[in-house]
Amino acid sequence: MLSRSDTEAFWAGGYRQYLPHVSVDSVVFGFQDGQLRVLLLRWKGLGIWSLPGGYVKLDESLDAAAVRVLRDRTGLRRVFLRQFRTFGGIRRHEAHMTALFEGLGLEVPRGAWPLGRVVSVGYLALVDFAKVRPVPDFVSDACTWHPVERLPKLAFDHRAIVRVALATLRAGLDSEAMVANLLPPRFTMPELQRLHEGLLGRRLDRRNFRKQMIDRGVVVRLPARRTGGAHRAPYLYRFTG
Amino acid sequence: MLSRSDTEAFWAGGYRQYLPHVSVDSVVFGFQDGQLRVLLLRWKGLGIWSLPGGYVKLDESLDAAAVRVLRDRTGLRRVFLRQFRTFGGIRRHEAHMTALFEGLGLEVPRGAWPLGRVVSVGYLALVDFAKVRPVPDFVSDACTWHPVERLPKLAFDHRAIVRVALATLRAGLDSEAMVANLLPPRFTMPELQRLHEGLLGRRLDRRNFRKQMIDRGVVVRLPARRTGGAHRAPYLYRFTG
Repeated sequence: MLSRSDTEAFWAGGYRQYLPHVSVDSVVFGFQDGQLRVLLLRWKGLGIWSLPGGYVKLDESLDAAAVRVLRDRTGLRRVFLRQFRTFGGIRRHEAHMTALFEGLGLEVPRGAWPLGRVVSVGYLALVDFAKVRPVPDFVSDACTWHPVERLPKLAFDHRAIVRVALATLRAGLDSEAMVANLLPPRFTMPELQRLHEGLLGRRLDRRNFRKQMIDRGVVVRLPARRTGGAHRAPYLYRFTG
Repeated sequence: MLSRSDTEAFWAGGYRQYLPHVSVDSVVFGFQDGQLRVLLLRWKGLGIWSLPGGYVKLDESLDAAAVRVLRDRTGLRRVFLRQFRTFGGIRRHEAHMTALFEGLGLEVPRGAWPLGRVVSVGYLALVDFAKVRPVPDFVSDACTWHPVERLPKLAFDHRAIVRVALATLRAGLDSEAMVANLLPPRFTMPELQRLHEGLLGRRLDRRNFRKQMIDRGVVVRLPARRTGGAHRAPYLYRFTG
């Protein structure tokens, strides 16, 4: 976890440890209560939300940076992470960065190294909602899930980054291996359907959906049913292969 | 076109104009004589080939940089360009950069700004081979097409960049809009089949291929046939929509 002294050291001498113009930002998707959700951090004292992101160290690859930054800022480990797009607009960073750190009561020296232009490499993270316990870092006072259809105000160009991440996820919907990361190992057909509906942003026909998933060999039905609910126990499925 | 004085100015004061750690590299694909080819530049005096790439200016977006760098280094304008992956390995750049510029007889000062680590944003460019006339820039003595299956020795991590670009192109083969950029507006069915074969790296059945292209509504047959060849004049097609 990032502490106050880490944050101060970052401003004072971070240029000796980080590439000054390159960051990573992760769009972490989870699926809960039939809704696709995105994990966001809220900047302390500002009420502004952002994606978990950070600078790349001089001696680490982009992929390693994405893993480290996600762990340091949210506590998440061992999640599916994949690069999807790099964001390099000219005015995506500087003014936001100053406002955010001043909001923390930290003095931001003019011309400080992290204030220049930053190109950010976007990563898509897919997690099984039930398995993770996000924890905010020092600069944040919340680290929580938000329905992708109702996001709060986001810092930087993070709303655009979420939009592109979602489009990437939708385009990859027929490659089930990726989507499988969003569900527990065993799930019901309605759960799988709601996930697809959440990703596509529209309703699907129940019978057609079930037939397609089984005919295409995407899922296999397990011998056991789920027990404990109020209704008739539903069949459980898992992804093939 | 980049001249000698441009190159010297770049080393002396480029940091006032460019982001020091961010570049773009384009993998330009063309299709000729039934073969998928990649456009490469040969470094003057070194015989080493590389992709057309360059630094990003402080005041231009990544997409704008990709357009400018491709034009300055190869003369190509108005081509289909799309970002596909960012390459951020730790040791992908520095040693290569020094060797290349020393090979040009240019003195490379220790610690010069372009020698640090560089993260490169890869762009995929698809061109109609018949329409472009590539021209090498000042630091290159050749700008020519190479079959993707028989590439010469490449600088930096450019071989890996080509491999990922090719995989991206293959994955997008069912989105015909992208592939259409590689063919002239009117083409024969064998030309379209050879393009698909070149992209996939394997032979396809002639009858199945033709049937699939027509049944899926990918192409429309035109009233005119191609004339002037030694054989029976083949039908011409164009992409739908």
